[in-house]
Amino acid sequence: MTQTNLLLGVAIAGVAIAATASLLGRKRKEGTNIDGKAIAATIRAEIKDHVAQLQKEKDVTPGLAVVLVGNRPDSATYVRMKKKAAAEVNFHSVDVELDVGVTQEELLQHVEDLNNDPKIHGILVQLPLPKHIDEALVLKRIAVEKDADGFSALNIGNLCLKGGDHPLSVPCTPAGCIELLERSNVDISGKDAVVLGRSNIVGMPVAQLLVHKNATVTVCHSRTKNIEQKVRQADIVVAAIGKADMVKGSWLKPGCVVIDVGINSVDDKTKKRGYRLTGDVAFAEAKPVCSQITPVPGGVGPMTIAMLLKNTLNLARHSSGLTPI
Amino acid sequence: MTQTNLLLGVAIAGVAIAATASLLGRKRKEGTNIDGKAIAATIRAEIKDHVAQLQKEKDVTPGLAVVLVGNRPDSATYVRMKKKAAAEVNFHSVDVELDVGVTQEELLQHVEDLNNDPKIHGILVQLPLPKHIDEALVLKRIAVEKDADGFSALNIGNLCLKGGDHPLSVPCTPAGCIELLERSNVDISGKDAVVLGRSNIVGMPVAQLLVHKNATVTVCHSRTKNIEQKVRQADIVVAAIGKADMVKGSWLKPGCVVIDVGINSVDDKTKKRGYRLTGDVAFAEAKPVCSQITPVPGGVGPMTIAMLLKNTLNLARHSSGLTPI
Repeated sequence: MTQTNLLLGVAIAGVAIAATASLLGRKRKEGTNIDGKAIAATIRAEIKDHVAQLQKEKDVTPGLAVVLVGNRPDSATYVRMKKKAAAEVNFHSVDVELDVGVTQEELLQHVEDLNNDPKIHGILVQLPLPKHIDEALVLKRIAVEKDADGFSALNIGNLCLKGGDHPLSVPCTPAGCIELLERSNVDISGKDAVVLGRSNIVGMPVAQLLVHKNATVTVCHSRTKNIEQKVRQADIVVAAIGKADMVKGSWLKPGCVVIDVGINSVDDKTKKRGYRLTGDVAFAEAKPVCSQITPVPGGVGPMTIAMLLKNTLNLARHSSGLTPI
Repeated sequence: MTQTNLLLGVAIAGVAIAATASLLGRKRKEGTNIDGKAIAATIRAEIKDHVAQLQKEKDVTPGLAVVLVGNRPDSATYVRMKKKAAAEVNFHSVDVELDVGVTQEELLQHVEDLNNDPKIHGILVQLPLPKHIDEALVLKRIAVEKDADGFSALNIGNLCLKGGDHPLSVPCTPAGCIELLERSNVDISGKDAVVLGRSNIVGMPVAQLLVHKNATVTVCHSRTKNIEQKVRQADIVVAAIGKADMVKGSWLKPGCVVIDVGINSVDDKTKKRGYRLTGDVAFAEAKPVCSQITPVPGGVGPMTIAMLLKNTLNLARHSSGLTPI
């Protein structure tokens, strides 16, 4: 991974603050925030450069198609954010907006058309789909060469198998977690990592990526006994279990690194909208204990879209016979 | 999984012995052996029944093709054992024995012919192949519908993804480990399991299978720190690291269950052939500490071929539109 000058500057500043804190009386330094927003912006800038290079060398512009069915406000918001990010890195972008009543056959035909469109390198069907449509069937119809989300069985298989073909794309949120660790100078190799959650979209693939990076990985879930004790042994905690503030500060090993994937909305009458977003980790308690932590929002969230762009860029590079970045 | 009367008898006998030991003074009962040979024989008998049923219902006989290139004695032995087992369960069996100098193109053509042979449901290319042949390329050429080993990326992906398509076949040794646990009445759900090793053929898939069975799984490997301490926390230890007698009795939690996948040959002048086989776990030390343990040989080994037969049966069932057993 390329370490940018910006991040190097932040790291040096961090060391300076730590040294000062130490001079002031050995008080344990509070954990620093891992700024997912800034890191995602850096990655988008890198992708933009790669896009320019790909255009120059191969006359190819990465193309991302986003398929939105119906008008769920949350889905519409995500799609808008993805389109904005794609525009920022100069992707070719195609929107397919379909009425909520679209038939499965019509939707499959749209996917097929995108599979056959040489200008499109990544296809994203925004979930959830309306109930009358077989979601798994639609996702399976996306050509593996255009699987921008990295969830196809073939890509997951190649992610898990060592020494075989590279996956053409990697699930976005797990890939984002690893980028956050590496760009925050966290040495993963030999560390004890605990992953909370075993979902297809986060827990399972992030555990696999951490094993590939030579971490010793424990996957915890709803059936795990003594989960607190397991978290306390971890140098790296990846929380993706979807329970607001579940992980307490007292559960953490001093100096550990926390990647909080949870985005939970909690009632909060002091907020205009009546709720606030919080992670799976009790942030205020955790911050004094850990060495680094991702805030919610502004941690893992912005990385997911950056990784979607990276996947699409890599799919475009693959279509031109180039290796992934 | 079907519990046979034979095994039930053994279990009842075990309870009786435990009760006697308790009456004789609360001395810790020594761990019992998990008899892989007997369990594998039971599974082969079940498969034989399923073959008869499939012939009766669908007029289909599961067909297994084994491709052997060259004349390595170890490979020839494995192939002979596989053929013997296939004959025992009344499979249709095809041997393709090729000269060590076979070209890659010729070998690929043989695989292609087997892919197109409707009487063949499982194809196994015995590894290793001679150096002039691209092993990965040959394995990838086997149709996923005939992947008897379960190592294709698509099958591995479907193994890892929850709630999607079932894998058409599951890697044999990992599947055998789970069968041994389940047929020995080990309750996996909620247990802490430690997997030693992260290989494509054992560690990675067995960890995934254990997570699916609701174990809390820690994957350890060459870069793991304090591996002894991690093993000591495990209710279930699966050792697949390939180091003779690495896991000591003192590493184990009293009452744990040990599945020893290692098959290491160690110099032994007292043996006629000059060596003996030993596992990754120091058996004599481990037996008094654990509750159940697989011996080496006679534990996991016989299960691998039984699971190869099960995969081939399930591929034949799949070709007839039936669900796996």
